[in-house]
Amino acid sequence: MTTHLPDGVSVDATPVGPTDENHIAKAAPETPADRRDTIELLGLVAQLEDVAFARLAADAALAPSTEQRLALTQFAAAAVVRRDRVLARITDLGGDPVAALRQYDHVLDDFDARTQPSSWWERLLKAYVGYGVADDFCRIAAEGLDETSRAMVLEILDDASHADLAVAELDAAGSSDGVLTARLALWGRRLVGESLGVVQRLLVQRPGLVRVLTRSRDADVPAVDAADLNTNQPTKLFSELTAQHTRRMSRLGLTA
Amino acid sequence: MTTHLPDGVSVDATPVGPTDENHIAKAAPETPADRRDTIELLGLVAQLEDVAFARLAADAALAPSTEQRLALTQFAAAAVVRRDRVLARITDLGGDPVAALRQYDHVLDDFDARTQPSSWWERLLKAYVGYGVADDFCRIAAEGLDETSRAMVLEILDDASHADLAVAELDAAGSSDGVLTARLALWGRRLVGESLGVVQRLLVQRPGLVRVLTRSRDADVPAVDAADLNTNQPTKLFSELTAQHTRRMSRLGLTA
Repeated sequence: MTTHLPDGVSVDATPVGPTDENHIAKAAPETPADRRDTIELLGLVAQLEDVAFARLAADAALAPSTEQRLALTQFAAAAVVRRDRVLARITDLGGDPVAALRQYDHVLDDFDARTQPSSWWERLLKAYVGYGVADDFCRIAAEGLDETSRAMVLEILDDASHADLAVAELDAAGSSDGVLTARLALWGRRLVGESLGVVQRLLVQRPGLVRVLTRSRDADVPAVDAADLNTNQPTKLFSELTAQHTRRMSRLGLTA
Repeated sequence: MTTHLPDGVSVDATPVGPTDENHIAKAAPETPADRRDTIELLGLVAQLEDVAFARLAADAALAPSTEQRLALTQFAAAAVVRRDRVLARITDLGGDPVAALRQYDHVLDDFDARTQPSSWWERLLKAYVGYGVADDFCRIAAEGLDETSRAMVLEILDDASHADLAVAELDAAGSSDGVLTARLALWGRRLVGESLGVVQRLLVQRPGLVRVLTRSRDADVPAVDAADLNTNQPTKLFSELTAQHTRRMSRLGLTA
Protein backbone atom coordinates (compact mmCIF):
# COMPACT_ATOMS: atom_id res chain seq x y z
CA MET A 1 0.00 0.00 0.00
CA THR A 2 1.54 3.29 -1.02
CA THR A 3 0.63 6.48 0.71
CA HIS A 4 1.18 10.09 -0.11
CA LEU A 5 1.15 11.15 3.53
CA PRO A 6 4.48 12.73 4.38
CA ASP A 7 6.69 11.10 7.00
CA GLY A 8 8.99 13.32 9.06
CA VAL A 9 8.01 16.54 7.36
CA SER A 10 10.70 19.17 7.68
CA VAL A 11 9.37 22.62 8.21
CA ASP A 12 10.65 25.55 6.26
CA ALA A 13 8.68 28.75 5.96
CA THR A 14 10.54 29.87 2.83
CA PRO A 15 9.02 28.95 -0.52
CA VAL A 16 10.60 25.91 -2.12
CA GLY A 17 11.37 25.60 -5.82
CA PRO A 18 9.56 23.35 -8.29
CA THR A 19 9.55 19.75 -7.05
CA ASP A 20 8.56 18.36 -10.45
CA GLU A 21 7.36 19.64 -13.79
CA ASN A 22 3.71 19.62 -12.78
CA HIS A 23 4.01 21.52 -9.57
CA ILE A 24 5.44 24.78 -8.33
CA ALA A 25 4.94 25.43 -4.63
CA LYS A 26 3.97 28.97 -3.73
CA ALA A 27 4.59 30.81 -0.48
CA ALA A 28 1.08 32.25 -0.58
CA PRO A 29 -2.19 31.42 -2.34
CA GLU A 30 -2.10 32.67 -5.93
CA THR A 31 -5.59 34.07 -6.44
CA PRO A 32 -8.23 35.58 -4.16
CA ALA A 33 -10.31 32.43 -4.74
CA ASP A 34 -7.37 30.21 -3.69
CA ARG A 35 -6.95 32.38 -0.66
CA ARG A 36 -10.59 31.96 0.35
CA ASP A 37 -10.34 28.19 -0.06
CA THR A 38 -7.11 28.11 1.94
CA ILE A 39 -8.74 30.07 4.75
CA GLU A 40 -11.69 27.68 4.62
CA LEU A 41 -9.38 24.73 5.26
CA LEU A 42 -7.37 26.58 7.91
CA GLY A 43 -10.62 27.43 9.69
CA LEU A 44 -11.37 23.72 9.88
CA VAL A 45 -7.89 22.90 11.20
CA ALA A 46 -8.25 25.62 13.85
CA GLN A 47 -11.71 24.36 14.83
CA LEU A 48 -10.43 20.80 15.18
CA GLU A 49 -7.70 22.01 17.55
CA ASP A 50 -10.32 23.99 19.45
CA VAL A 51 -12.47 20.86 19.76
CA ALA A 52 -9.36 18.88 20.75
CA PHE A 53 -8.82 21.34 23.59
CA ALA A 54 -12.37 20.89 24.87
CA ARG A 55 -12.18 17.09 24.62
CA LEU A 56 -8.79 16.84 26.27
CA ALA A 57 -9.96 19.14 29.06
CA ALA A 58 -13.05 16.95 29.56
CA ASP A 59 -10.87 13.81 29.49
CA ALA A 60 -8.53 15.39 32.05
CA ALA A 61 -11.45 15.99 34.41
CA LEU A 62 -12.26 12.26 34.25
CA ALA A 63 -8.69 10.92 34.20
CA PRO A 64 -8.21 7.98 36.57
CA SER A 65 -4.83 9.21 37.84
CA THR A 66 -3.15 12.52 38.62
CA GLU A 67 -0.36 11.69 36.15
CA GLN A 68 -2.90 11.23 33.34
CA ARG A 69 -4.63 14.44 34.33
CA LEU A 70 -1.34 16.33 34.14
CA ALA A 71 -0.55 14.85 30.72
CA LEU A 72 -4.02 15.53 29.30
CA THR A 73 -4.09 19.14 30.51
CA GLN A 74 -0.67 19.68 28.90
CA PHE A 75 -2.01 18.29 25.62
CA ALA A 76 -5.04 20.57 25.95
CA ALA A 77 -2.80 23.60 26.45
CA ALA A 78 -0.74 22.56 23.40
CA ALA A 79 -3.93 22.39 21.30
CA VAL A 80 -4.65 26.04 22.17
CA VAL A 81 -1.17 27.04 21.03
CA ARG A 82 -1.60 25.10 17.78
CA ARG A 83 -5.04 26.61 17.17
CA ASP A 84 -3.65 30.09 17.68
CA ARG A 85 -0.84 29.47 15.19
CA VAL A 86 -3.43 28.55 12.57
CA LEU A 87 -5.52 31.60 13.42
CA ALA A 88 -2.41 33.78 13.06
CA ARG A 89 -1.84 32.36 9.58
CA ILE A 90 -5.44 33.18 8.65
CA THR A 91 -4.78 36.76 9.76
CA ASP A 92 -1.56 36.83 7.69
CA LEU A 93 -3.61 35.80 4.66
CA GLY A 94 -5.98 38.71 5.23
CA GLY A 95 -8.79 36.54 6.61
CA ASP A 96 -10.94 36.99 9.70
CA PRO A 97 -9.79 34.24 12.09
CA VAL A 98 -12.89 34.34 14.27
CA ALA A 99 -15.22 34.05 11.28
CA ALA A 100 -13.08 31.26 9.78
CA LEU A 101 -13.28 29.35 13.04
CA ARG A 102 -16.92 30.06 13.76
CA GLN A 103 -18.20 28.61 10.47
CA TYR A 104 -17.23 25.15 11.81
CA ASP A 105 -18.56 25.69 15.33
CA HIS A 106 -20.81 22.62 15.35
CA VAL A 107 -18.88 20.43 12.95
CA LEU A 108 -18.52 17.54 15.42
CA ASP A 109 -21.74 17.93 17.41
CA ASP A 110 -23.52 15.10 15.56
CA PHE A 111 -20.44 12.91 15.75
CA ASP A 112 -20.19 13.48 19.51
CA ALA A 113 -23.87 12.78 20.05
CA ARG A 114 -23.58 9.47 18.19
CA THR A 115 -20.38 8.35 19.90
CA GLN A 116 -20.75 8.82 23.63
CA PRO A 117 -18.00 6.72 25.24
CA SER A 118 -19.17 4.46 28.06
CA SER A 119 -15.75 3.89 29.65
CA TRP A 120 -12.33 5.48 30.00
CA TRP A 121 -10.97 3.10 27.35
CA GLU A 122 -13.71 4.00 24.89
CA ARG A 123 -12.99 7.65 25.59
CA LEU A 124 -9.27 7.16 24.87
CA LEU A 125 -9.99 5.24 21.67
CA LYS A 126 -12.46 7.87 20.54
CA ALA A 127 -9.79 10.54 20.92
CA TYR A 128 -7.22 8.40 19.11
CA VAL A 129 -9.46 7.35 16.21
CA GLY A 130 -11.45 10.59 15.99
CA TYR A 131 -8.40 12.87 16.01
CA GLY A 132 -6.63 10.40 13.75
CA VAL A 133 -9.15 10.58 10.92
CA ALA A 134 -9.50 14.35 11.28
CA ASP A 135 -5.73 14.84 11.28
CA ASP A 136 -5.28 12.58 8.25
CA PHE A 137 -7.96 14.47 6.35
CA CYS A 138 -6.26 17.79 7.11
CA ARG A 139 -2.84 16.34 6.20
CA ILE A 140 -4.12 15.20 2.81
CA ALA A 141 -5.93 18.49 2.18
CA ALA A 142 -2.83 20.48 3.23
CA GLU A 143 -1.08 19.15 0.11
CA GLY A 144 -3.26 21.56 -1.88
CA LEU A 145 -2.13 24.64 0.07
CA ASP A 146 0.65 27.17 -0.52
CA GLU A 147 3.97 26.05 0.91
CA THR A 148 3.92 28.17 4.07
CA SER A 149 0.40 27.11 5.07
CA ARG A 150 1.12 23.50 4.15
CA ALA A 151 4.31 23.33 6.22
CA MET A 152 2.55 24.87 9.21
CA VAL A 153 -0.43 22.51 9.07
CA LEU A 154 1.83 19.45 8.72
CA GLU A 155 4.04 20.58 11.60
CA ILE A 156 1.01 21.14 13.81
CA LEU A 157 -0.47 17.74 12.99
CA ASP A 158 2.85 16.01 13.67
CA ASP A 159 2.84 17.45 17.18
CA ALA A 160 -0.08 15.23 18.15
CA SER A 161 1.67 13.65 21.12
CA HIS A 162 -1.65 12.93 22.84
CA ALA A 163 -1.96 9.91 20.54
CA ASP A 164 1.04 8.34 22.24
CA LEU A 165 -0.70 8.40 25.62
CA ALA A 166 -3.75 6.69 24.13
CA VAL A 167 -1.60 4.08 22.44
CA ALA A 168 0.44 3.32 25.55
CA GLU A 169 -2.59 2.97 27.79
CA LEU A 170 -4.83 1.12 25.38
CA ASP A 171 -2.02 -1.23 24.49
CA ALA A 172 -1.27 -2.00 28.14
CA ALA A 173 -4.94 -2.55 28.94
CA GLY A 174 -5.95 -4.42 25.83
CA SER A 175 -3.13 -6.94 25.73
CA SER A 176 -4.31 -8.57 28.96
CA ASP A 177 -8.05 -8.55 28.38
CA GLY A 178 -9.66 -10.34 25.43
CA VAL A 179 -13.17 -9.07 26.15
CA LEU A 180 -11.96 -5.47 26.26
CA THR A 181 -10.01 -5.98 23.02
CA ALA A 182 -13.07 -7.31 21.20
CA ARG A 183 -15.27 -4.53 22.54
CA LEU A 184 -12.78 -1.83 21.56
CA ALA A 185 -12.36 -3.27 18.06
CA LEU A 186 -16.13 -2.93 17.61
CA TRP A 187 -16.06 0.59 19.07
CA GLY A 188 -13.23 1.50 16.68
CA ARG A 189 -15.31 0.40 13.69
CA ARG A 190 -18.21 2.54 14.83
CA LEU A 191 -15.92 5.51 15.38
CA VAL A 192 -14.29 5.31 11.97
CA GLY A 193 -17.66 4.95 10.26
CA GLU A 194 -18.97 8.06 11.99
CA SER A 195 -15.71 9.91 11.31
CA LEU A 196 -15.87 9.18 7.59
CA GLY A 197 -19.47 10.37 7.69
CA VAL A 198 -18.26 13.72 9.02
CA VAL A 199 -15.75 13.98 6.17
CA GLN A 200 -18.45 13.16 3.64
CA ARG A 201 -20.79 15.83 5.00
CA LEU A 202 -17.95 18.37 4.93
CA LEU A 203 -17.30 17.63 1.26
CA VAL A 204 -20.97 18.16 0.45
CA GLN A 205 -21.24 21.37 2.45
CA ARG A 206 -17.85 22.92 1.71
CA PRO A 207 -16.95 23.19 -1.99
CA GLY A 208 -13.86 25.18 -0.95
CA LEU A 209 -12.43 22.12 0.80
CA VAL A 210 -13.06 20.00 -2.29
CA ARG A 211 -11.22 22.55 -4.44
CA VAL A 212 -8.23 22.43 -2.07
CA LEU A 213 -8.24 18.62 -2.26
CA THR A 214 -8.20 18.68 -6.07
CA ARG A 215 -5.14 20.97 -6.00
CA SER A 216 -3.08 18.27 -4.30
CA ARG A 217 0.66 18.68 -4.91
CA ASP A 218 0.94 15.03 -5.72
CA ALA A 219 -0.39 15.23 -9.26
CA ASP A 220 -0.31 11.49 -9.93
CA VAL A 221 -2.65 10.65 -7.10
CA PRO A 222 -4.95 13.59 -6.40
CA ALA A 223 -7.00 13.03 -3.28
CA VAL A 224 -10.11 14.04 -5.17
CA ASP A 225 -10.45 13.92 -8.94
CA ALA A 226 -13.03 15.39 -11.28
CA ALA A 227 -15.08 12.18 -11.51
CA ASP A 228 -15.36 12.05 -7.73
CA LEU A 229 -16.90 15.46 -7.50
CA ASN A 230 -20.24 14.32 -8.88
CA THR A 231 -20.61 11.51 -6.40
CA ASN A 232 -19.18 13.25 -3.32
CA GLN A 233 -17.54 9.91 -2.61
CA PRO A 234 -13.90 10.51 -3.52
CA THR A 235 -12.54 7.00 -3.70
CA LYS A 236 -8.89 7.88 -3.30
CA LEU A 237 -9.49 10.07 -0.24
CA PHE A 238 -11.67 7.52 1.53
CA SER A 239 -9.40 4.58 0.79
CA GLU A 240 -6.47 6.64 2.11
CA LEU A 241 -8.32 7.55 5.32
CA THR A 242 -9.43 3.95 5.80
CA ALA A 243 -5.90 2.61 5.26
CA GLN A 244 -4.50 5.00 7.84
CA HIS A 245 -7.23 3.97 10.27
CA THR A 246 -6.36 0.30 9.80
CA ARG A 247 -2.70 1.07 10.46
CA ARG A 248 -3.67 2.99 13.59
CA MET A 249 -5.80 0.17 14.97
CA SER A 250 -3.01 -2.32 14.29
CA ARG A 251 -0.69 -0.27 16.51
CA LEU A 252 -3.10 -1.17 19.32
CA GLY A 253 -3.36 -4.79 18.28
CA LEU A 254 -6.99 -4.18 17.33
CA THR A 255 -8.73 -5.36 14.15
CA ALA A 256 -10.04 -2.44 12.12
CA MET B 1 -5.94 50.64 55.44
CA THR B 2 -2.40 49.44 55.02
CA THR B 3 -1.57 46.26 53.22
CA HIS B 4 1.53 44.15 52.98
CA LEU B 5 0.60 42.75 49.60
CA PRO B 6 3.29 43.71 47.11
CA ASP B 7 2.38 45.95 44.22
CA GLY B 8 4.31 45.58 41.00
CA VAL B 9 6.54 42.83 42.33
CA SER B 10 9.76 42.63 40.37
CA VAL B 11 10.90 39.11 39.79
CA ASP B 12 14.47 38.10 40.38
CA ALA B 13 15.42 34.50 40.86
CA THR B 14 18.72 35.33 42.54
CA PRO B 15 18.73 35.50 46.33
CA VAL B 16 18.48 39.03 47.69
CA GLY B 17 20.41 40.30 50.69
CA PRO B 18 18.94 41.17 54.07
CA THR B 19 16.07 43.64 53.67
CA ASP B 20 16.05 44.60 57.33
CA GLU B 21 17.65 43.52 60.56
CA ASN B 22 14.98 40.94 61.28
CA HIS B 23 14.99 39.15 57.98
CA ILE B 24 17.46 37.41 55.72
CA ALA B 25 15.98 36.02 52.52
CA LYS B 26 17.26 32.59 51.53
CA ALA B 27 17.41 31.08 48.08
CA ALA B 28 16.19 27.76 49.44
CA PRO B 29 14.37 26.54 52.55
CA GLU B 30 16.82 26.27 55.46
CA THR B 31 15.74 23.06 57.18
CA PRO B 32 14.07 19.84 56.04
CA ALA B 33 10.97 20.93 57.97
CA ASP B 34 10.92 24.31 56.17
CA ARG B 35 11.28 22.45 52.92
CA ARG B 36 8.28 20.24 53.67
CA ASP B 37 6.17 23.26 54.58
CA THR B 38 7.28 25.08 51.43
CA ILE B 39 6.31 22.09 49.31
CA GLU B 40 2.97 21.97 51.12
CA LEU B 41 2.23 25.54 50.08
CA LEU B 42 3.55 25.03 46.55
CA GLY B 43 1.28 21.98 46.20
CA LEU B 44 -1.68 24.21 47.02
CA VAL B 45 -0.60 26.85 44.50
CA ALA B 46 -0.21 24.15 41.83
CA GLN B 47 -3.61 22.69 42.67
CA LEU B 48 -5.28 26.09 42.43
CA GLU B 49 -3.80 26.55 38.94
CA ASP B 50 -5.00 23.07 38.04
CA VAL B 51 -8.49 23.95 39.25
CA ALA B 52 -8.27 27.25 37.38
CA PHE B 53 -7.57 25.30 34.19
CA ALA B 54 -10.64 23.11 34.68
CA ARG B 55 -12.87 26.10 35.47
CA LEU B 56 -11.62 28.20 32.58
CA ALA B 57 -12.09 25.25 30.22
CA ALA B 58 -15.66 24.79 31.51
CA ASP B 59 -16.29 28.53 31.16
CA ALA B 60 -14.91 28.44 27.61
CA ALA B 61 -17.39 25.70 26.70
CA LEU B 62 -20.24 27.98 27.83
CA ALA B 63 -18.85 31.27 26.56
CA PRO B 64 -21.50 33.36 24.77
CA SER B 65 -19.13 34.41 21.96
CA THR B 66 -16.26 32.91 19.96
CA GLU B 67 -13.98 35.76 21.07
CA GLN B 68 -14.66 34.96 24.74
CA ARG B 69 -14.08 31.27 24.07
CA LEU B 70 -10.72 32.04 22.49
CA ALA B 71 -9.69 34.23 25.41
CA LEU B 72 -10.81 31.73 28.06
CA THR B 73 -9.03 28.79 26.42
CA GLN B 74 -5.86 30.89 26.26
CA PHE B 75 -6.16 31.63 29.98
CA ALA B 76 -6.73 27.91 30.61
CA ALA B 77 -3.57 27.04 28.68
CA ALA B 78 -1.64 29.66 30.66
CA ALA B 79 -2.83 28.08 33.94
CA VAL B 80 -1.31 24.75 32.84
CA VAL B 81 2.03 26.47 32.17
CA ARG B 82 1.92 28.19 35.57
CA ARG B 83 1.02 24.95 37.34
CA ASP B 84 3.92 23.16 35.68
CA ARG B 85 6.35 25.88 36.78
CA VAL B 86 5.27 25.33 40.38
CA LEU B 87 5.58 21.56 40.00
CA ALA B 88 9.09 22.02 38.58
CA ARG B 89 10.04 24.05 41.67
CA ILE B 90 8.72 21.25 43.90
CA THR B 91 10.97 18.83 42.00
CA ASP B 92 13.92 21.23 42.43
CA LEU B 93 13.29 21.18 46.18
CA GLY B 94 13.45 17.38 46.19
CA GLY B 95 9.69 16.95 46.56
CA ASP B 96 7.27 14.68 44.68
CA PRO B 97 5.19 17.05 42.54
CA VAL B 98 2.36 14.60 41.93
CA ALA B 99 2.00 13.82 45.63
CA ALA B 100 2.20 17.53 46.52
CA LEU B 101 -0.59 18.26 44.04
CA ARG B 102 -2.71 15.25 44.86
CA GLN B 103 -3.06 16.06 48.57
CA TYR B 104 -5.25 19.02 47.56
CA ASP B 105 -7.26 17.16 44.95
CA HIS B 106 -10.68 17.98 46.43
CA VAL B 107 -9.86 21.26 48.12
CA LEU B 108 -12.56 23.22 46.26
CA ASP B 109 -15.20 20.50 45.82
CA ASP B 110 -17.34 21.76 48.72
CA PHE B 111 -16.91 25.33 47.60
CA ASP B 112 -18.01 24.43 44.09
CA ALA B 113 -21.02 22.47 45.29
CA ARG B 114 -22.17 25.43 47.39
CA THR B 115 -21.63 28.06 44.72
CA GLN B 116 -23.19 26.83 41.49
CA PRO B 117 -23.53 29.89 39.25
CA SER B 118 -26.94 30.33 37.66
CA SER B 119 -25.87 32.71 34.87
CA TRP B 120 -22.85 33.68 32.81
CA TRP B 121 -22.38 36.79 34.99
CA GLU B 122 -22.45 34.77 38.20
CA ARG B 123 -19.92 32.42 36.63
CA LEU B 124 -17.60 35.30 35.74
CA LEU B 125 -17.92 36.81 39.20
CA LYS B 126 -17.26 33.45 40.81
CA ALA B 127 -14.01 33.13 38.87
CA TYR B 128 -13.02 36.69 39.73
CA VAL B 129 -13.83 36.51 43.44
CA GLY B 130 -12.88 32.88 43.95
CA TYR B 131 -9.50 33.13 42.21
CA GLY B 132 -9.02 36.51 43.86
CA VAL B 133 -9.26 35.22 47.43
CA ALA B 134 -7.19 32.12 46.62
CA ASP B 135 -4.52 34.22 44.90
CA ASP B 136 -4.39 36.70 47.78
CA PHE B 137 -4.02 33.88 50.29
CA CYS B 138 -1.12 32.39 48.32
CA ARG B 139 0.48 35.83 47.90
CA ILE B 140 0.40 36.42 51.64
CA ALA B 141 1.67 32.93 52.41
CA ALA B 142 4.45 33.27 49.80
CA GLU B 143 6.05 35.92 52.03
CA GLY B 144 7.09 33.07 54.32
CA LEU B 145 8.97 31.19 51.56
CA ASP B 146 12.58 31.20 50.44
CA GLU B 147 13.33 33.96 47.94
CA THR B 148 13.29 31.81 44.79
CA SER B 149 9.97 30.14 45.61
CA ARG B 150 8.48 33.44 46.74
CA ALA B 151 9.48 35.30 43.57
CA MET B 152 8.07 32.49 41.40
CA VAL B 153 4.73 32.35 43.24
CA LEU B 154 4.32 36.14 43.11
CA GLU B 155 5.20 36.24 39.42
CA ILE B 156 2.69 33.49 38.67
CA LEU B 157 -0.07 35.18 40.62
CA ASP B 158 0.60 38.51 38.90
CA ASP B 159 -0.05 36.84 35.55
CA ALA B 160 -3.74 36.46 36.32
CA SER B 161 -4.93 38.23 33.20
CA HIS B 162 -8.23 36.35 33.24
CA ALA B 163 -9.37 38.79 35.93
CA ASP B 164 -9.25 41.60 33.38
CA LEU B 165 -11.76 39.84 31.15
CA ALA B 166 -14.14 39.38 34.07
CA VAL B 167 -13.75 43.01 35.10
CA ALA B 168 -14.32 44.35 31.59
CA GLU B 169 -17.41 42.25 31.00
CA LEU B 170 -18.97 42.60 34.42
CA ASP B 171 -18.35 46.31 34.41
CA ALA B 172 -19.95 46.75 30.99
CA ALA B 173 -22.96 44.63 31.95
CA GLY B 174 -23.46 45.90 35.48
CA SER B 175 -23.29 49.61 34.77
CA SER B 176 -26.47 49.50 32.72
CA ASP B 177 -28.56 47.15 34.83
CA GLY B 178 -29.45 47.95 38.43
CA VAL B 179 -31.14 44.62 39.12
CA LEU B 180 -28.08 42.70 37.88
CA THR B 181 -25.80 44.88 39.99
CA ALA B 182 -27.78 44.20 43.15
CA ARG B 183 -27.94 40.48 42.44
CA LEU B 184 -24.22 40.25 41.74
CA ALA B 185 -23.36 42.19 44.91
CA LEU B 186 -25.30 39.58 46.89
CA TRP B 187 -23.60 36.76 44.96
CA GLY B 188 -20.20 38.32 45.68
CA ARG B 189 -20.92 38.31 49.41
CA ARG B 190 -21.85 34.66 49.28
CA LEU B 191 -18.73 33.84 47.29
CA VAL B 192 -16.35 35.62 49.63
CA GLY B 193 -17.97 33.97 52.66
CA GLU B 194 -17.49 30.52 51.15
CA SER B 195 -13.96 31.39 50.02
CA LEU B 196 -12.94 32.46 53.52
CA GLY B 197 -14.46 29.22 54.77
CA VAL B 198 -12.11 27.30 52.49
CA VAL B 199 -9.12 29.22 53.89
CA GLN B 200 -10.26 28.51 57.43
CA ARG B 201 -10.58 24.77 56.77
CA LEU B 202 -7.12 24.75 55.17
CA LEU B 203 -5.60 26.33 58.26
CA VAL B 204 -7.20 23.69 60.49
CA GLN B 205 -6.15 20.80 58.25
CA ARG B 206 -2.68 22.00 57.18
CA PRO B 207 -0.35 22.99 60.02
CA GLY B 208 2.42 23.35 57.40
CA LEU B 209 0.55 26.26 55.79
CA VAL B 210 0.12 27.93 59.17
CA ARG B 211 3.87 27.61 59.82
CA VAL B 212 4.63 29.24 56.47
CA LEU B 213 2.22 32.08 57.30
CA THR B 214 3.93 32.71 60.65
CA ARG B 215 7.31 32.99 58.88
CA SER B 216 6.11 36.05 56.96
CA ARG B 217 8.98 38.27 55.81
CA ASP B 218 7.13 41.30 57.06
CA ALA B 219 7.96 40.86 60.73
CA ASP B 220 5.87 43.81 61.96
CA VAL B 221 2.62 42.41 60.64
CA PRO B 222 2.80 38.61 60.49
CA ALA B 223 -0.20 37.18 58.66
CA VAL B 224 -0.68 34.73 61.51
CA ASP B 225 0.66 35.29 65.02
CA ALA B 226 0.98 32.93 67.95
CA ALA B 227 -2.27 34.03 69.59
CA ASP B 228 -4.17 33.31 66.38
CA LEU B 229 -3.02 29.72 66.24
CA ASN B 230 -5.30 28.66 69.09
CA THR B 231 -8.40 30.10 67.53
CA ASN B 232 -7.72 29.17 63.90
CA GLN B 233 -9.12 32.60 63.12
CA PRO B 234 -6.05 34.63 62.27
CA THR B 235 -7.41 38.16 62.46
CA LYS B 236 -4.71 39.78 60.38
CA LEU B 237 -5.00 37.26 57.55
CA PHE B 238 -8.76 37.44 57.35
CA SER B 239 -8.94 41.21 57.54
CA GLU B 240 -6.34 41.35 54.77
CA LEU B 241 -8.31 38.94 52.55
CA THR B 242 -11.54 40.82 53.23
CA ALA B 243 -9.97 44.19 52.45
CA GLN B 244 -8.66 42.89 49.13
CA HIS B 245 -12.08 41.47 48.32
CA THR B 246 -13.71 44.84 49.03
CA ARG B 247 -11.21 46.56 46.75
CA ARG B 248 -11.91 43.95 44.04
CA MET B 249 -15.68 44.41 44.22
CA SER B 250 -15.25 48.20 44.06
CA ARG B 251 -13.44 47.82 40.75
CA LEU B 252 -16.76 46.43 39.45
CA GLY B 253 -18.81 49.12 41.12
CA LEU B 254 -20.28 46.48 43.44
CA THR B 255 -20.76 46.77 47.18
CA ALA B 256 -18.81 44.08 49.06
